[in-house]
Amino acid sequence: MKISARNKLQGKIIEVKKGATTAHVRLEIAPGQIITASITNEAVEELGLKLGAKASAVIKASDVMIAID
Amino acid sequence: MKISARNKLQGKIIEVKKGATTAHVRLEIAPGQIITASITNEAVEELGLKLGAKASAVIKASDVMIAID
Amino acid sequence: MKISARNKLQGKIIEVKKGATTAHVRLEIAPGQIITASITNEAVEELGLKLGAKASAVIKASDVMIAID
Amino acid sequence: MKISARNKLQGKIIEVKKGATTAHVRLEIAPGQIITASITNEAVEELGLKLGAKASAVIKASDVMIAID
Amino acid sequence: MKISARNKLQGKIIEVKKGATTAHVRLEIAPGQIITASITNEAVEELGLKLGAKASAVIKASDVMIAID
Amino acid sequence: MKISARNKLQGKIIEVKKGATTAHVRLEIAPGQIITASITNEAVEELGLKLGAKASAVIKASDVMIAID
Repeated sequence: MKISARNKLQGKIIEVKKGATTAHVRLEIAPGQIITASITNEAVEELGLKLGAKASAVIKASDVMIAID
Repeated sequence: MKISARNKLQGKIIEVKKGATTAHVRLEIAPGQIITASITNEAVEELGLKLGAKASAVIKASDVMIAID
Repeated sequence: MKISARNKLQGKIIEVKKGATTAHVRLEIAPGQIITASITNEAVEELGLKLGAKASAVIKASDVMIAID
Repeated sequence: MKISARNKLQGKIIEVKKGATTAHVRLEIAPGQIITASITNEAVEELGLKLGAKASAVIKASDVMIAID
Repeated sequence: MKISARNKLQGKIIEVKKGATTAHVRLEIAPGQIITASITNEAVEELGLKLGAKASAVIKASDVMIAID
Repeated sequence: MKISARNKLQGKIIEVKKGATTAHVRLEIAPGQIITASITNEAVEELGLKLGAKASAVIKASDVMIAID
């Protein structure tokens, strides 16, 4: 599958925390650079997301903001 | 300002492409790792975004998906 | 690639309209049921999206609202 | 009320699952075609969403991605 | 139509700026408080959005971030 | 920090409700005008969000829809 989303950042899963319906998954995409995703518990199960596994963060360009100091 | 968005990735602006109302801004957040943001032209002007400047990509956790191969 | 997004609706591309930076792509996912996607021109080119081709609309569950009459 | 969101898919509610603050609602929009929405518990109550009721999924075009095989 | 989105802010349209495919619409929701929406040109036409008309900004709770100074 | 998001509405926190992973925070941005944000519990803690404190709702323009009666 190829997707239109412009951003795919490869990393390793360092945390999976399931809530009642919503889970938080953390990926390390570079040393010390962490991405947090809020997805459904169901997706965590369907994809079999586990600590230490390789995965990518996928983000649509229209969901990215830019900030400066 | 501190913001609730979980993801802030620091980088350097490598492209600013303005359209009629919407601009695409690209940040290099690590060697070879590029983030594309689709924001308003107005924001590009207000923040003075320019090639080579430091900036961060800010992304709400609920806008991040996870993919596996 | 498997993605956490809960919604994947298969269809056929019935319109591709490129703007200055942003394109609108329309899929027919069932007779008379049309989905409109606003994506980057770049994604249209990279995926080679063309009239009549098969494609899917992918939507994160947290981006879906529910309405009643 | 008329809304700018380009996508309104009519269907029937086939599941309502409330979590601590976030609920998942599933609509069948065509035979075998299911849409999952992640909305607040509060919205489920305010709209009185129940199994078997008619409802629509509403999605902004900028939240729709396109994928190809 | 009743919608699950938690945020509906009534106001008056003070600007409509169409681009190639994407339009920016500004509402004044209280004296000096302006909301900017980025929507499709098509929605602007379909809803007949015009300067001075009453309209509401509708925002899903999961798209709202919180910031502090 | 300056951010590209076009919408920053200042207000006062009138409710913080934490769920298992996701919290709902309500701001009063004008007399009787309430904004609900769905953010991570973690963000609530990191920002120290509390009843009565000043805070802003931040919303990207591409996440705002327009509705008319």
